[in-house]
Amino acid sequence: MRKIWRNVYRWGDTEKKLDHTIEHHIGHFKHLLGIEGEAHELPLNANAGDEVKLAKRSRLNRTALRDLMRIVGSENVMVDDFHRATHSFGKYYGDIVRMRLGKISNPPDGVVCPRTEEDIIKVVNYCHLKKIAIVPWGGGTSVTRALEADKGGIALDLTRHFKDVLSLNAEDSTVTVESGILGPDLELYLNERGYTCGHFPQSFEFATVGGWVAARGAGQASTGYGRIEDILVGLRAVTPAGLISCGNYPAASVGGDIRHFILGSEGTLGVISRVTIRVRKYNAANAVMKSFMFKSFEAAVTAMREMMQSQVYPPHFFRISDPEETEIGLGMKGKDKGLAGAFLNTMGYKKGGRSLMYAIFEGDAAQCKTGARTLGKIVRKNGGLSLGSYATRKWLEQRYSSAYMRDPMMDAGIRIDTIETSVHYSRLIELWEAVRKYIKQDGQTLCLTHISHTYETGANLYFIFVSPMLPKDELAQFEKFHKGIVATFVAHGGTLSHHHGVGRLVAHALDRQHSPATLAAWRAVKKTLDPKGIMNPGALIF
Amino acid sequence: MRKIWRNVYRWGDTEKKLDHTIEHHIGHFKHLLGIEGEAHELPLNANAGDEVKLAKRSRLNRTALRDLMRIVGSENVMVDDFHRATHSFGKYYGDIVRMRLGKISNPPDGVVCPRTEEDIIKVVNYCHLKKIAIVPWGGGTSVTRALEADKGGIALDLTRHFKDVLSLNAEDSTVTVESGILGPDLELYLNERGYTCGHFPQSFEFATVGGWVAARGAGQASTGYGRIEDILVGLRAVTPAGLISCGNYPAASVGGDIRHFILGSEGTLGVISRVTIRVRKYNAANAVMKSFMFKSFEAAVTAMREMMQSQVYPPHFFRISDPEETEIGLGMKGKDKGLAGAFLNTMGYKKGGRSLMYAIFEGDAAQCKTGARTLGKIVRKNGGLSLGSYATRKWLEQRYSSAYMRDPMMDAGIRIDTIETSVHYSRLIELWEAVRKYIKQDGQTLCLTHISHTYETGANLYFIFVSPMLPKDELAQFEKFHKGIVATFVAHGGTLSHHHGVGRLVAHALDRQHSPATLAAWRAVKKTLDPKGIMNPGALIF
Repeated sequence: MRKIWRNVYRWGDTEKKLDHTIEHHIGHFKHLLGIEGEAHELPLNANAGDEVKLAKRSRLNRTALRDLMRIVGSENVMVDDFHRATHSFGKYYGDIVRMRLGKISNPPDGVVCPRTEEDIIKVVNYCHLKKIAIVPWGGGTSVTRALEADKGGIALDLTRHFKDVLSLNAEDSTVTVESGILGPDLELYLNERGYTCGHFPQSFEFATVGGWVAARGAGQASTGYGRIEDILVGLRAVTPAGLISCGNYPAASVGGDIRHFILGSEGTLGVISRVTIRVRKYNAANAVMKSFMFKSFEAAVTAMREMMQSQVYPPHFFRISDPEETEIGLGMKGKDKGLAGAFLNTMGYKKGGRSLMYAIFEGDAAQCKTGARTLGKIVRKNGGLSLGSYATRKWLEQRYSSAYMRDPMMDAGIRIDTIETSVHYSRLIELWEAVRKYIKQDGQTLCLTHISHTYETGANLYFIFVSPMLPKDELAQFEKFHKGIVATFVAHGGTLSHHHGVGRLVAHALDRQHSPATLAAWRAVKKTLDPKGIMNPGALIF
Repeated sequence: MRKIWRNVYRWGDTEKKLDHTIEHHIGHFKHLLGIEGEAHELPLNANAGDEVKLAKRSRLNRTALRDLMRIVGSENVMVDDFHRATHSFGKYYGDIVRMRLGKISNPPDGVVCPRTEEDIIKVVNYCHLKKIAIVPWGGGTSVTRALEADKGGIALDLTRHFKDVLSLNAEDSTVTVESGILGPDLELYLNERGYTCGHFPQSFEFATVGGWVAARGAGQASTGYGRIEDILVGLRAVTPAGLISCGNYPAASVGGDIRHFILGSEGTLGVISRVTIRVRKYNAANAVMKSFMFKSFEAAVTAMREMMQSQVYPPHFFRISDPEETEIGLGMKGKDKGLAGAFLNTMGYKKGGRSLMYAIFEGDAAQCKTGARTLGKIVRKNGGLSLGSYATRKWLEQRYSSAYMRDPMMDAGIRIDTIETSVHYSRLIELWEAVRKYIKQDGQTLCLTHISHTYETGANLYFIFVSPMLPKDELAQFEKFHKGIVATFVAHGGTLSHHHGVGRLVAHALDRQHSPATLAAWRAVKKTLDPKGIMNPGALIF
């Protein structure tokens, strides 16, 4: 790989060519934003092809370097600029902007790749002794600034060596892995043995199992398979205060459950080393896919809520696109005009109101049928129209690829980022309207919203906003804009995040989410497990 | 109510007459234990009718009494011996033995009944200031010695006034209550509005919603409705360090989740004041009840496991009685002999091997059918025989009443207590065999075991042991025996408890369940929320 800036920040396979679909989609966005064909300013492409050089030199001294090399092997400690740069940021929009500007103010001093849990223990003990900061590093896909070396130190990259499947227990339906394993490697291993992990975040291709837990994430099929906290059985975490092993039982009443402090700890308490998760039988052939059009977002949400409260096994994937996302989606496929569009309009599913619902039932064949039949009834009751499986199949095809769009969109001078929350049903529409109003206040920003994770009591709301980049001051303006969205969430009963996490991005509002006594308890846990504050300093509230 | 000892310890309605069924069952146990008609020693009935007098006087001084009375009203502070005695112990076998012996070494100095959350805050602040211990008191149904005033102080009884339903949110499917509400009051309120709480511990009649959370309990229908941690949405807890309000969202990734330290905290961190739980539609008419006989416990467990791993909505109630429990159950109904017994034997469902399975599907009618059909198939594959719904209906009838049996059994000189654990499927049979061997080592003890809560990865095991009381030294011998069972759990991969909790009963083994770093983190939370250690001192590890 060439050690150029573009390869530091680009999503995924850095040599991959821009495919035709993505080009087409970007063209559509440019058209919608009215920046087609114009001499639109492209402010952030300057250094893309330049070789990576960091202003800050590694501060790891010779002794520390030697000692770390003794622990993990000299080939597993890197202090060159390119490795440090690629371990400086995650994939938040502001991260990419910073990298495009070459502004890496806090790179780690080195990247260390442990081979075993024993290596991790030795590194953590050594760094604790020497007060060297550690940022545990999985796939680097954080979109919440969870991965920054505020105090230098090392990025502990678990993806190079620490990625074995340790055991599959068919009787218990569990698999135990080393935390650095990537989603596709685990899923392939499981599929070959008739199982699935059920956890498919959009970052699936590049995120690690340890990262899933550390970020308290949720996959696209969480409505059926559960969030990572539902899928997680047990784990081991290496903290400066010792190894934590927990959760090796189906359920228990044995006091506090430390798993729920390690879930979402984002590297601040220790290094998650081994993870045991539930697996489910992989029955791809049984899947039943459905899509439906509703006359309004409200009607679609009501149908979704009724399905979730029906006491019938819900769809594993269950999504609604709001009217703007529905329209842009139809537009990209050319379905808004011509016969399809006219038909929908005639039937009362009008542009600006109509909302698409997607559902996939997986697992047992009879259960899939019962679920689909129940959903069909609820949809009809709420004025929905069945569109067969086409839209859902199309969505599935691009379930991971839309993440590849951001880099070329930024190349074209377009700002695109996402933010998400969750809220109870009784305030969902209110929150959706308030956030849209806020995001669209400039009259130019597109706001595509969907619900992609849903529960008996409420759902998430996932906002994608697209606008021309500002020629000047893009980063500062964007950050101000972002804080405003978070404040709007809080004002309308939403959480700071549903599945992206906190990192350094929304930590400023943690006291709006947690009581002072809760934060105090949490700080006490931190102080106990990491008394010198070496674990990912600066993330969350620590 | 007469202020006699019997009314301190007796389960439930203290004036209730012993019904015929219970008398019959006790007769059967006496027969099985070979103590029928003999002049069996009845060591613990001596003081039953005596008026309650405590050796220890209340140490609440006049100022504290006056101050507490000012907060909650003078009628809501009691310092008489009977009230103090009834708030001295829960319902663990050893508790009853102690009370029958009149041995109440640590009664609270007074009982305080707050009327509002404001009262609770004032009482907690006052007690924090004055260093007066508080034991939060719900229904008093703990079977783990969670309710003892090791350091005197007050029992804060929430059941007298603090029991309103605050709001039902039909859109969110949630209800918010004051923590002192009893199960039946909540369930009646919900049923009248078309909902159910879905949480039915055997203590349902006398346990509070706050107690469900504090004990991290699971109800008889937890396989379908979830454990209390699944049903819980949000809560408020009054701690000496301030009010914690948490969890008012469907799901989130916002760092650590303090709910999972309050769940199972057993009064050691603060007083749970308000609880919001999920509710489900109450569709009693849709319920499908099934019972099945298997040739062995192993076959029944395999069928249960396959159902739980089928990705079909499982039964809400899902139970298996092991061979000994099955046989004693059949014997009590006279079904072990005669035609039924002969038929089962002929078919290969032989005494000593045969195991009964009970299942109830609730909620949506179509879903119930799909579930029952799937289970039927799995049962047949594993050699099970359908017995219709009779056994399950019979079980339902006595779902709460068997708790009333202990007092008359103890009157008859019979020791009866229960202990429970959970374990992954791969070690379930091993653990069951080891614990039975331990319990039955004296050659005289009956051991009835069932699985009543089940998961994709494993299940609980619930052991009921019955033997003649020892004429001497019953308490000390029993406690030794109990510790041996817990050690056997741990040695075979079981948890210290599945849903009863820890209290003071199994706290001695907490370091076998949690890593030292976990316990340290937990102690740090305690120290932060309750710096002077006034909250239920002596429970758990504090």
